[in-house]
Amino acid sequence: MKHLGIFYKPELFGKAESLKELLLNEGYIVDYCESSERIKNNKVDLTIVLGGDGTFLKASHLVNNPLVGFKGGRLGFLSSYTVEEFDKFLKDLKNNNFVSDERTFLKVSDLNTFCLNEVLLVKDPDQKMVDIKISFQDGELFFHADGIMLSTPTGSTGYSLSLGGPILLPNTKAFVITPVAPQFLASRSIVIPDNEKVNIEVDKRVNLIIDGVNFGKFSKITVMKSKKKISILRPVDYDFTKSIKEKLGYGKKIL
Amino acid sequence: MKHLGIFYKPELFGKAESLKELLLNEGYIVDYCESSERIKNNKVDLTIVLGGDGTFLKASHLVNNPLVGFKGGRLGFLSSYTVEEFDKFLKDLKNNNFVSDERTFLKVSDLNTFCLNEVLLVKDPDQKMVDIKISFQDGELFFHADGIMLSTPTGSTGYSLSLGGPILLPNTKAFVITPVAPQFLASRSIVIPDNEKVNIEVDKRVNLIIDGVNFGKFSKITVMKSKKKISILRPVDYDFTKSIKEKLGYGKKIL
Repeated sequence: MKHLGIFYKPELFGKAESLKELLLNEGYIVDYCESSERIKNNKVDLTIVLGGDGTFLKASHLVNNPLVGFKGGRLGFLSSYTVEEFDKFLKDLKNNNFVSDERTFLKVSDLNTFCLNEVLLVKDPDQKMVDIKISFQDGELFFHADGIMLSTPTGSTGYSLSLGGPILLPNTKAFVITPVAPQFLASRSIVIPDNEKVNIEVDKRVNLIIDGVNFGKFSKITVMKSKKKISILRPVDYDFTKSIKEKLGYGKKIL
Repeated sequence: MKHLGIFYKPELFGKAESLKELLLNEGYIVDYCESSERIKNNKVDLTIVLGGDGTFLKASHLVNNPLVGFKGGRLGFLSSYTVEEFDKFLKDLKNNNFVSDERTFLKVSDLNTFCLNEVLLVKDPDQKMVDIKISFQDGELFFHADGIMLSTPTGSTGYSLSLGGPILLPNTKAFVITPVAPQFLASRSIVIPDNEKVNIEVDKRVNLIIDGVNFGKFSKITVMKSKKKISILRPVDYDFTKSIKEKLGYGKKIL
């Protein structure tokens, strides 16, 4: 890996400069891009992301090469290092001392976009509750709610968790569907195999939010697993359960 | 299918007699067994279960042939017909008009038993809370709780749901782990791929309950997917989502 890209959020400009300097000194070719811009050259061997999960999600939509994240945000499930660990990273990079953490994308019908975390259909704050119909190969379900979320295992520690959903280990071949503020007692999540094609129909046009970005108003979408995958480079001692213990306190030995 | 077994719970003796009569008149060979007894001949082509999910679970442990359930209990997720539908069943049987609903079993290390629904480790009512360590290939988690449950998709509409777990579509290749009354805020479930081998260690000896049966006190078990599968015969219009809508009201169109 000789040709590297850096994708950074504006607040981390200083850190990005330092890392670039370090990498150039080591003889790497470095492309450079602020997260508000489009990446010009995505034919690099590895894209380094400086920022939080939001910046990482954005980068994951723009490139097809492996990614490695440096935590600069609040949670950082997608990050592998903190911005204080450039030296450790450089050593791992020289020795190619990584494990690849593969994650699956979703695609949303008719939209030229991918989704790493979650697809959310949700009403406006001043809109009335909506009727939602979800159908897949094995049947259909109805919810009267503010909206509906379909999350990947990657997204299961994000907004899906805030909505009451379970955590899914990253390599679980499943999605999780969770209604947003449903009427009556239907607030439980349902987990479905990731080879299901999921049709969602809403009786009114509502916001379609994919990985945090609003794509406008829709009343009908189809969501399915995409062929696009992403490889996140992790230090060899990476452990997902360690990360949920540290970041969420879930499953942590407290006393 | 010419050789049939009937496995019935005592309360349904009358229904079992009627069904036996009907089947003998149609030229079938019928074996007959009350649910408190051991099945003598499990080399039949099909075992007919009259009872609730409890009776069905028991039968599933005793035979390797396909099963078909007639609801005689309260919920009956495993049943395909009600005890009022003998005629419909006979017609389906003649025309072999079934779909096969395959379910995966768990096995528990060192115990010569299988598990279709769930494995539960739980303290006695007058025992103090216990420390639980769960480990699998990808890491480990700790809970201070009354106990811990590992459920299959089949079990996810049972006790696992009562403990706050999500529903898993039957063909999801995953298990769900839910702590029982955990300290602090760790009450969310975690979904893991069904190829994980799960070690559970408890700091005291607690009850091991497999599919509702108490196997005594244990402090360490290993749970993994078994090679044993079961085929539940269903009417061709069987639909899992219909059954959770009817039985749980989940995903039901209410207004």
